[in-house]
Amino acid sequence: MSRLVEPRVLKGFRDYPPALMIPRERLMETARRVYRSYGFAPIDTPAIELTEVLLAKVEPGAEINKQLYRFKDAGDRDVALRFDLTVPLARFVAQHYTELGLPFKRYHLGTVWRGESPQAGRFREFMQCDFDTIGTLSNAADVEIALVINDLFDALGFDRFAIRVNNRLVLNGLLSQLGLDRKTSALLRSLDKLAKIGREKVIEEMGREAGVTPERAAPVIALAETTGSNADVLDELDRRFADNEEAKKGVANLREMVAVFQTAGVPDGRLRVDLSICRGLDYYTGTVYETFLLDKPEIGSVCSGGRYDNLAGTYTKQSLPGVGASLGLDRLLAAMEALDLVPKTATPAPVLVLQFDATRYGDYQRMARTLRAAGIGTEVYPDAKKLGQQFQYAERRGFRVGLIAGGNEFAQGAWKVKNLATKEEQTVAEAEVAEAVRRLIAGAGPPPG
Amino acid sequence: MSRLVEPRVLKGFRDYPPALMIPRERLMETARRVYRSYGFAPIDTPAIELTEVLLAKVEPGAEINKQLYRFKDAGDRDVALRFDLTVPLARFVAQHYTELGLPFKRYHLGTVWRGESPQAGRFREFMQCDFDTIGTLSNAADVEIALVINDLFDALGFDRFAIRVNNRLVLNGLLSQLGLDRKTSALLRSLDKLAKIGREKVIEEMGREAGVTPERAAPVIALAETTGSNADVLDELDRRFADNEEAKKGVANLREMVAVFQTAGVPDGRLRVDLSICRGLDYYTGTVYETFLLDKPEIGSVCSGGRYDNLAGTYTKQSLPGVGASLGLDRLLAAMEALDLVPKTATPAPVLVLQFDATRYGDYQRMARTLRAAGIGTEVYPDAKKLGQQFQYAERRGFRVGLIAGGNEFAQGAWKVKNLATKEEQTVAEAEVAEAVRRLIAGAGPPPG
Repeated sequence: MSRLVEPRVLKGFRDYPPALMIPRERLMETARRVYRSYGFAPIDTPAIELTEVLLAKVEPGAEINKQLYRFKDAGDRDVALRFDLTVPLARFVAQHYTELGLPFKRYHLGTVWRGESPQAGRFREFMQCDFDTIGTLSNAADVEIALVINDLFDALGFDRFAIRVNNRLVLNGLLSQLGLDRKTSALLRSLDKLAKIGREKVIEEMGREAGVTPERAAPVIALAETTGSNADVLDELDRRFADNEEAKKGVANLREMVAVFQTAGVPDGRLRVDLSICRGLDYYTGTVYETFLLDKPEIGSVCSGGRYDNLAGTYTKQSLPGVGASLGLDRLLAAMEALDLVPKTATPAPVLVLQFDATRYGDYQRMARTLRAAGIGTEVYPDAKKLGQQFQYAERRGFRVGLIAGGNEFAQGAWKVKNLATKEEQTVAEAEVAEAVRRLIAGAGPPPG
Repeated sequence: MSRLVEPRVLKGFRDYPPALMIPRERLMETARRVYRSYGFAPIDTPAIELTEVLLAKVEPGAEINKQLYRFKDAGDRDVALRFDLTVPLARFVAQHYTELGLPFKRYHLGTVWRGESPQAGRFREFMQCDFDTIGTLSNAADVEIALVINDLFDALGFDRFAIRVNNRLVLNGLLSQLGLDRKTSALLRSLDKLAKIGREKVIEEMGREAGVTPERAAPVIALAETTGSNADVLDELDRRFADNEEAKKGVANLREMVAVFQTAGVPDGRLRVDLSICRGLDYYTGTVYETFLLDKPEIGSVCSGGRYDNLAGTYTKQSLPGVGASLGLDRLLAAMEALDLVPKTATPAPVLVLQFDATRYGDYQRMARTLRAAGIGTEVYPDAKKLGQQFQYAERRGFRVGLIAGGNEFAQGAWKVKNLATKEEQTVAEAEVAEAVRRLIAGAGPPPG
């Protein structure tokens, strides 16, 4: 026999066994369903692209240059694995916008790769779940992105969450007013850390990174710290920026978003105008979004995004403004795990038909088919092993209900239906098994998968 | 302004715009739903693995060596992109079977990469949709794979399809009897082409590749050409192999499969014992499956697989037999396209709310939310452009229903509901819009997405 090769994965990569993959798939399917319900359409793009294309927008000194999985393909082309879904979106829309037509609303769930230092607890392969509207300057598109985020967290079963929105125009207007507009990038990168590191450190960093004195930084911090109801904050901004056209435009957009949420019937408190939200990234130019779970705010934003003026300027002269956001799948799963919202199960089917008598396998599958047709996932154990062993299998995987039938039951036209959590067993006429199972599963919480 | 980079994809790769991606996602979701309903659980594995791990089972002369996307990563490790999902499954199960427990039923939908010659019309990046049961020798698992295939094509909306099954033990038994067992691989590779190239060419190839004379090849071809009902074929095999233990085992397994399909209530004709099915691959050792669309048989098998004795022998001494199959997503989509079964639409939402009056955007989103809550995907056009332009957008994307409301309608508490195919328009009271839309969509066939 030949030498064995040790089965292992690369550092920074991981396998997803069923217990991890079942909740991931559930999240991804919910995201797809909600995105679609708003008319966002799915696309996919190649995982491998020409390096020239992927790095078209990237500055030579940027971190991502070092993180890229880059290599020569068999045709000696310089290629790389995509490191996000925004660059491929830009390339895709620049290439296809005439056939696609604008506005173009797409979602994209896809794997991306970055050779990050694995010590940081980060993975080198992860999934992004983006949705964007391209080709319109209308604030309606911005409002809609926030509505999608609301429905997404609703659909995921959350009630206690907040979408925090701001508009860069407000910040830009203020910085212009203060004569600080040439330091916008550095100031916003610092301001973005306000919640995390506190005002003192932000002021310190603004001095260090942007050369701005504490006195000049003060009104920026003060604006970010404005608190109150949405109406109060907006009124305050109206007063503050009565003569500032840029900021006024931002305030008007925020005001429209708040009004539409109300008219559309979204529960109060879901949308919060928060002037401390600015997103560190340079390319946002209007609305910015972050989403927090109120029971786990320390994990950070689980869905973020914003408006950008020019998505694809490196590929086309066509101006392609857009607005979108991205669900942080791994962060959200970690939060749900911590909040005990992830059912512990390694089976997507709640019911196991045990195999008591190998000669009756057809009958076991017949019952399983009846349950499947009723929308209840049902596995049949493949061997007529000892029942104890089959129950052990059921327990280990997290099945909810076991079905057993042997000579006695078949003679009676009945099945034993066992609640695997309580170990209670009842004998049920064949025609009533589906209903009995449904009741047991409903009693035990939502079905897995 | 800096030089533009031409937006393009690599040869052999492709973008999936919405019109292609919507039916792909629908297929993948149906596959997941059916796999789950039988208790197959999802897993995922890294796209990048150590080359040593991926090639553990591959012979030095094999084609795949040349097709591999192989490179050195930043840590100078010899790595490659996965070229199928079977090798990662073998590695995964060898690595984790003690935690997973056996039997282990998994499905895996994942992208794989092969640097095939793009002239052949093949893509270098494609999706595989595998499902397998690992760790049991029970024929029940083999029967179940066929049941899953049946339910899968049922769920995809097909009625006219056939799952053709055979068992390698029958073929092996025959070849042993004929003293040809040392030529099994070459003979089965030729026999596999019977439907495609015909008996004369197969006999010729058997002579050329296996050194077997037409006289000795004749009984092999004759067996493969046995026709008749499942019962007739099985009875014929019983007579033919009364003294051949190996073949008898294969026949008994096929007989059980036929019986279970009947008991479980699967329509007659779905499962067909077909002794010409052998799958060219060396590693199958028992049941083999192919699936044909009766209205498009020339496209070949759209779901194939079989039983193998030893999945992971290169990674572990633990014996891991298995049985499984793989849905040929791209081939099936091509067939569905040719059969006109793919709805032509670039929107996952059937309804478009037109924006007639920008100040009523909140009301438009309110109505859209009502429809979404009723399970009807609804997009709101983001700009108050001319209605003609908005209708053009709707038509281009394939929306079914348009909703329009302006001052008159809001005054009446009503909406105009327009069937975008027939251009008929009706005015409907707000509370009845969802029902009116539902009727229109139902009348126009199943909703997209």
